[in-house]
Amino acid sequence: MSLLRHQVRHGAYADSVVLMQLQANLAALDGVVDAAAVMATRTNRELLAASDLLPRNTGAGADDLLLVVRADNAEAADAALAAVDGLLARRHQAADGDYRPKSLDGALKLLPSARWVLVSVPGRYAADVARRALERDRHVFLYSDNVPLDDEVALKRLAAERGLLVMGPDCGTAIVGGSGLGFANRVRRGGVGIVGASGTGIQAIASRVHALGEGVSHALGTGGRDLSEKVGGATALQGLDLLRRDPETRVIVLVSKPPAATVAARLLAAARATGKPVVVCFLGWPPPARRLGPLAFAAGLDDAAELAVKLAGSEAKPSSAGGPAAEEPDDGSPDERGQLRALFGGGTLAQELLQAVAPFLAPLHSNLKAPGVEPLDDPARSRGHAVIDLGEDEYTAGRLHPMLDPALRLDRLRQEAADPDTALILVDLVLGDGAHADPAAGLAETIAEVERPGLELAALVVGTDEDPQDAAAQSEALAASGVTVFTELPAVAAHVVERLAPPPEPPANPVALDALADGPAAVNIGLEIFGDGVAATGGEAVQVDWRPPAGGNERLRAILDKLR
Amino acid sequence: MSLLRHQVRHGAYADSVVLMQLQANLAALDGVVDAAAVMATRTNRELLAASDLLPRNTGAGADDLLLVVRADNAEAADAALAAVDGLLARRHQAADGDYRPKSLDGALKLLPSARWVLVSVPGRYAADVARRALERDRHVFLYSDNVPLDDEVALKRLAAERGLLVMGPDCGTAIVGGSGLGFANRVRRGGVGIVGASGTGIQAIASRVHALGEGVSHALGTGGRDLSEKVGGATALQGLDLLRRDPETRVIVLVSKPPAATVAARLLAAARATGKPVVVCFLGWPPPARRLGPLAFAAGLDDAAELAVKLAGSEAKPSSAGGPAAEEPDDGSPDERGQLRALFGGGTLAQELLQAVAPFLAPLHSNLKAPGVEPLDDPARSRGHAVIDLGEDEYTAGRLHPMLDPALRLDRLRQEAADPDTALILVDLVLGDGAHADPAAGLAETIAEVERPGLELAALVVGTDEDPQDAAAQSEALAASGVTVFTELPAVAAHVVERLAPPPEPPANPVALDALADGPAAVNIGLEIFGDGVAATGGEAVQVDWRPPAGGNERLRAILDKLR
Repeated sequence: MSLLRHQVRHGAYADSVVLMQLQANLAALDGVVDAAAVMATRTNRELLAASDLLPRNTGAGADDLLLVVRADNAEAADAALAAVDGLLARRHQAADGDYRPKSLDGALKLLPSARWVLVSVPGRYAADVARRALERDRHVFLYSDNVPLDDEVALKRLAAERGLLVMGPDCGTAIVGGSGLGFANRVRRGGVGIVGASGTGIQAIASRVHALGEGVSHALGTGGRDLSEKVGGATALQGLDLLRRDPETRVIVLVSKPPAATVAARLLAAARATGKPVVVCFLGWPPPARRLGPLAFAAGLDDAAELAVKLAGSEAKPSSAGGPAAEEPDDGSPDERGQLRALFGGGTLAQELLQAVAPFLAPLHSNLKAPGVEPLDDPARSRGHAVIDLGEDEYTAGRLHPMLDPALRLDRLRQEAADPDTALILVDLVLGDGAHADPAAGLAETIAEVERPGLELAALVVGTDEDPQDAAAQSEALAASGVTVFTELPAVAAHVVERLAPPPEPPANPVALDALADGPAAVNIGLEIFGDGVAATGGEAVQVDWRPPAGGNERLRAILDKLR
Repeated sequence: MSLLRHQVRHGAYADSVVLMQLQANLAALDGVVDAAAVMATRTNRELLAASDLLPRNTGAGADDLLLVVRADNAEAADAALAAVDGLLARRHQAADGDYRPKSLDGALKLLPSARWVLVSVPGRYAADVARRALERDRHVFLYSDNVPLDDEVALKRLAAERGLLVMGPDCGTAIVGGSGLGFANRVRRGGVGIVGASGTGIQAIASRVHALGEGVSHALGTGGRDLSEKVGGATALQGLDLLRRDPETRVIVLVSKPPAATVAARLLAAARATGKPVVVCFLGWPPPARRLGPLAFAAGLDDAAELAVKLAGSEAKPSSAGGPAAEEPDDGSPDERGQLRALFGGGTLAQELLQAVAPFLAPLHSNLKAPGVEPLDDPARSRGHAVIDLGEDEYTAGRLHPMLDPALRLDRLRQEAADPDTALILVDLVLGDGAHADPAAGLAETIAEVERPGLELAALVVGTDEDPQDAAAQSEALAASGVTVFTELPAVAAHVVERLAPPPEPPANPVALDALADGPAAVNIGLEIFGDGVAATGGEAVQVDWRPPAGGNERLRAILDKLR
């Protein structure tokens, strides 16, 4: 028959990894059956009760340390509880020894070069600690979870004003200047930069990049909620902008679960503006294309790593670090760029084009459906950007398919050309047996009628050199009439986006590049293992001997806050 | 001032391409301003009215041919109407000359070797013509649209009973034995077989495969509704099964807009069962992975063609044409294969695994969300196949993350192992600074406790050789304990699907391979250009001089149907 003994240490605090180790050490002692060392929060008390480890009437609350031992006899139980201080002290000595500052300011005096503050204290204290760090002009790595969403928004707003980064809350991993923050894999330095709202996503990609022989420049976590509507991708946008300017980064990987639609659009615009190849991996999101100009869309973490390594190796695209985005025409406001009018006969081609450009152009209308696309109220009249499948019933009722009878499309082309908002008219020419014998001729004739400055005509030619119309001959005839000719849909989509998509708003206060400096110095407040990790990977860390403010007394804390 | 003249030919019929050409010829005559040659359906009459080409009180109905001419003067108008018969006759002579059978049976007497009947008559007659073709044991290429969905289901049921194919309705293209049916590009023969519910999708892929230097074995259209819930992918499944047995086909491409979820699952199971690499291109569908065993998921038409050509060139996977699926264990019913229980610490890894296996395993439960995945009612208890993210709040409340504290997961592992339904337990090990110092040790210990016949333990190890735990050492330790070790998520997902996904039901009446024989003979009923296309690409075609039954008189037709 075993018995239960316990001890309460009011207002004492230890981080959860330390407590877990203490608990394991206690349970391993002779005569001890089971042990617990926890902050006595309600949840923890419930867990203890479920394991039959909750003594009655401990009187311990959320800010008290509760030690429980179940042992074979009273001697063993008492011996275990007596060993606690020794076990805790051993841990302290084993760590970094001597003096430990008790506050952030103390730590910063000890390590004034610290650009980073790592925060992993319990969630309800975390925002406050992070805010103090920002006020002292330090970047924040915020591992803590259960930080209220409003606090995240406020912290990131403050950070943006000051040109600082807040990675998190609930940010599990980062690699900065060669050092790991939080959970991080040891990977060689290299040309792949990562921005991720997903901790294990970053870790899996970084590990795979390393396995494939490439390396990682920096990996920046954002926290899982960063890409929500409310937070708006604040940290991810800063991260993309940093890696854009970072000369070491040749390829960027952007990884997360699917972001909010508006946030996805902003991120993709920013990704394009980096002027570097960006591999986008939004898990579970229908990829708009495989490649779209400088963007590549991955179907998973390993795929993202493989694409990034391939792009980093090819070096096809010159890095334009620091400069403006390479392919972005900088004349004119978004509206002055004019509208897309795509008049397609091939339904699947129209659908693929629609999906490819939908995340980049707004408002976009169509008689086909895709996420973020608005219906055409009047099939006979385009509004905004429009992708129209002229093979759909509303156009073909009582008529031949446009692949046979070009008249309907040519009429519509004249109409679109007459609209002064139209900047780019795009058509498809699907050749082969059964199709019109010479679609390029009719098109060229109509184009000659409607040409005007500021209006581009482009065509996607689908066919082969053996087709009765000969694809190459049709392409040449179109090109001779001034039509921009493409033979692959992704190239068309990239052209549309380059010509017509608005550039992103640049960040008001860019984060200085020294955020990514080698061997970062950091103040660590919370889980000691995170400081150990920084030190083990070439950085420098000072551990704050953090305790809950006012000994965990919430009322006293509120009074102190008012006095400040 | 122009004037309008018209002529009605009651019960006359001509196909829409012929009428379009007639109309263009009439409009080109001297003194003619505009002209129309249409079947006088309500829609066509409305279109005429909109072009100011509808005479008053013509008395013409849906089955009457209406000829209208707007001319500068009466002489020109009369001359144009008088020219109609000459223009129509010229067309007939220009085509295939002599005798034209008036019925399908007549055509089959003329060309008894015809395995195919091409049907492009107006929709309301098309099902009837197609049914007659099936009753005469011929495959059907059904271009006509506006065929009722119930008719499609009935036609495809009849076809399945007889081992025949119905491509369509609304099937725009196919390539069979080197000949094009409908709209088709001229592409070289090669190892890429295509099954598609998308006409221009097939054309774009076939053209691109040709441009990349490979060729097409056969391209089988299904019609756009084939992958709907109601039709159930009947033709697509037959197509996959045919290409599985076709020795020429080395790689299969499956292309469509997103199918109904249940149909997608059936198609993917059938695709795996081909034993050949299959490139899946469901436009706008979140790809479960980039590669999943023999399946590759494309992000667009060009991407699909490129993947197919790469796979056809590599020949890495030996073709097992005609045999059973290569990797499919054939022991046991689906249920006897047992259940997956994935216990993950990494949230994004869990999400990616979930999405990768979701189309293959049912019922699949998770505390994460994905299409087709059911929630876990009780987080503490698995049901069916289950993928569990143990890093989510319901598991970590008051505890450390499983990457730090393995205890929770090891408890759950014991629980799953004790469930006799569990066939495969899968865990992730995310290594690196900050993570547990030796997760493999605890896992190996627990595995030794729970081992039993019929239970496989597998692990995904994420980390590098430089990590403090050394990924290779952890993998070796696990392998030594009998754990199947993976380092890439797509390989894990493929393993799960291979072990646990049920095989597809084989078709009851497989379509005989001679459906794909070279230089097919065909009877063509409807658009003459389709017969021309077959003849121009090595096939043989007989044109039926089709007219609407009972001169287009619906009542008379119903009476005749009853008398048959």
